[in-house]
Amino acid sequence: MASQQQIHTDYPALVEALARAGRAAQRVLARLDTTARAHALRSAAAALRAAAPRILVANRQDLAAGEAGGLSPAMLDRLKLDEARLEGVAGAVEAVAALPDPLGEVIDRRAVPSGLELSRVRIPIGLIGIIYESRPNVTADAAALCLMSGNAVLLRGGSEAVHSNRAIHAALVEGIVAAGIPAEAVQLMPVQDREAVGAMLRAAGLIDMIVPRGGKGLVARVQNDARVPVLAHLDGICHTYIHSAADRGMAVSLALNAKMRRTGICGAMETLLLDAAFPASIETVGALLEAGCELRGDARAQALDPRIKPASANDWDTEYLDAVLSVAVVDGLDAALAHIARHSSGHTDAIVTADEAAAERFLAEVDSAIVMVNASTQFADGGEFGLGAEIGIATGRLHARGPVALEGLTTYKWQVRGTGQARP
Amino acid sequence: MASQQQIHTDYPALVEALARAGRAAQRVLARLDTTARAHALRSAAAALRAAAPRILVANRQDLAAGEAGGLSPAMLDRLKLDEARLEGVAGAVEAVAALPDPLGEVIDRRAVPSGLELSRVRIPIGLIGIIYESRPNVTADAAALCLMSGNAVLLRGGSEAVHSNRAIHAALVEGIVAAGIPAEAVQLMPVQDREAVGAMLRAAGLIDMIVPRGGKGLVARVQNDARVPVLAHLDGICHTYIHSAADRGMAVSLALNAKMRRTGICGAMETLLLDAAFPASIETVGALLEAGCELRGDARAQALDPRIKPASANDWDTEYLDAVLSVAVVDGLDAALAHIARHSSGHTDAIVTADEAAAERFLAEVDSAIVMVNASTQFADGGEFGLGAEIGIATGRLHARGPVALEGLTTYKWQVRGTGQARP
Repeated sequence: MASQQQIHTDYPALVEALARAGRAAQRVLARLDTTARAHALRSAAAALRAAAPRILVANRQDLAAGEAGGLSPAMLDRLKLDEARLEGVAGAVEAVAALPDPLGEVIDRRAVPSGLELSRVRIPIGLIGIIYESRPNVTADAAALCLMSGNAVLLRGGSEAVHSNRAIHAALVEGIVAAGIPAEAVQLMPVQDREAVGAMLRAAGLIDMIVPRGGKGLVARVQNDARVPVLAHLDGICHTYIHSAADRGMAVSLALNAKMRRTGICGAMETLLLDAAFPASIETVGALLEAGCELRGDARAQALDPRIKPASANDWDTEYLDAVLSVAVVDGLDAALAHIARHSSGHTDAIVTADEAAAERFLAEVDSAIVMVNASTQFADGGEFGLGAEIGIATGRLHARGPVALEGLTTYKWQVRGTGQARP
Repeated sequence: MASQQQIHTDYPALVEALARAGRAAQRVLARLDTTARAHALRSAAAALRAAAPRILVANRQDLAAGEAGGLSPAMLDRLKLDEARLEGVAGAVEAVAALPDPLGEVIDRRAVPSGLELSRVRIPIGLIGIIYESRPNVTADAAALCLMSGNAVLLRGGSEAVHSNRAIHAALVEGIVAAGIPAEAVQLMPVQDREAVGAMLRAAGLIDMIVPRGGKGLVARVQNDARVPVLAHLDGICHTYIHSAADRGMAVSLALNAKMRRTGICGAMETLLLDAAFPASIETVGALLEAGCELRGDARAQALDPRIKPASANDWDTEYLDAVLSVAVVDGLDAALAHIARHSSGHTDAIVTADEAAAERFLAEVDSAIVMVNASTQFADGGEFGLGAEIGIATGRLHARGPVALEGLTTYKWQVRGTGQARP
């Protein structure tokens, strides 16, 4: 018989219990070699495939609840799984199993005059917390990246996807347990209350790092409230600067692609900087307007085309995630660098130029996680960067920056091998 | 005429103004090559030497105030400068100028199928805050490490050393300005109020990292209150485990050195774990007792020598920083690993053994920043690790761990070189 008190969850105690269990499982996981971890991931992928009927039933429950609750069609689409999408989820887990293993890598090695031999060796971080919203595939994707990098994971998915997440989590656990990994290496927060998220964010020393996966509201809350280090980006206010020496065709093609290929991703361009000396600015803004993009410009940009609306001061700091773009005309590289230093969110900024000296100055002086020459900012992605996957893109300055995959989920320790040295 | 309001300092606004000035200076600094940064450090060292008379006068003011205020002899000694110590401070700045430059190092480079060329390149972190206590040499040491790694620094020293710090800071600024670096690259907090420290700790996005240098009270406050990432260690609860296959002479020598060489440093051993099967435990504890160390043991350790006092549960989690040591007898490597997993502060832990398999398991499974085989834990030091200096020793799991010098004061960015690639 549950007493009245037991009905109220002690969230910090719950998180501590889950974290301690996760940390104990992580110590077992950290002792496994590459083959054993990869085997566990393939076992989890097989279990996901075997559990497909159960997972799809659970997903239909979430979809029905979402429809009844008035979720938008876009949200419902993010939530929805079908056989093909689920096969994609299982395949992604297998793809992580095939990635190069960062664990055990010797970052550097040196002998010192005392005769000690020092090595810095990559190790897992420990216990990673993932806080995400409606996409149930994150349950499997994030778990796979954490496990392959030797980390335990504590997952907290959105309420809309609770049945899907539980069914996917159950399959993952079945798969890893069959491969000899403790079930607690992948835990799903058993309660949906918001207070549980707060307890995770404050669990410094128990959870080693938190990765929020979702919209700006979620990321902002996590960054504001967390005492645990957070790997994330809040905004992707990405700039493309068309230098005076840019190839005209390339400028048009990259401006169009950086903005219009997909407008809702963090690597989409949000501000176009046109050099006053670039001869094809009218053509460039014309191509964007004809592709259906709304342009908001400063006075000099507006003079290029009557269809360009006036930009407000806010526009330079806005991530539209839509077919809207702010456009400014700048006087040379220094002015472009100054604009970017003031308004970039530190995600991805690009220059288009045939002038190598200008390109190298841009690469050196723009202080963002990713800086590009003659490429679309939409390439900012772990897969496109050859990492095979990504747990997220980080704009913080410490630990890992830009697209983060397995290596960003590791840290290092110093191993010191002596022959009896006492310090003089 | 100052109004009543102006008398009250707006600490967040003060920190913001200092931080913005520091960040602007840092952008200038980051453009300088190795030679220019090294030249500025040598210029600062020369200015320190030239300002020696002024600095020593200022230091005598602090010493007089400290004596009048009842500072302990140990505190006064930490505060005290003389010509030899000041020459040591200048020499340390020159030594940092001679260290290998981490900036610009290409961490990795890859080409991806799209034809993009990716490089990850080391860059400065940005603006580093240093919060320290009575040692005025930190003013110069920390500034030198930050400047050489391309970072601006905001220093906040202890009130006891305020005149010394201001005199050293003035000399440093004179030296770097003569070398063409903006004065704001090295700023000293102009007010001593504790609220100014609080404002630094909350300046997320303005200060990129804070390094506390001082006693446990300072570090604990910084770690508790900071919203800015902190590089630090709170405790150095270091273990030495004497394995059954340890060489007897080496065990005695390393136990003595790890505890008694200097008892007040963070790398000093605080707990000795004796394997039940190690045949020379009596000799080992005897040597420590005869060297004047107080031993506090569990029941089995107490049975080794009647002079060993009983340990309380607290002792296993205590950093004595004194000639006191807790001693436990453990049954084999697994028991030692379990004790360390439970009680280590993650700083430095060592095994003494002639058994290579045991050594490798210890190196792999102990999850501390530094793990050692057959060496004294007192080697945990940036100088001994060949780093040439250290800004501190970190026990956090992210970014930099163990002794941190120039490389730990850097981060990276991704540079992407394309030839017009639009993302398909």
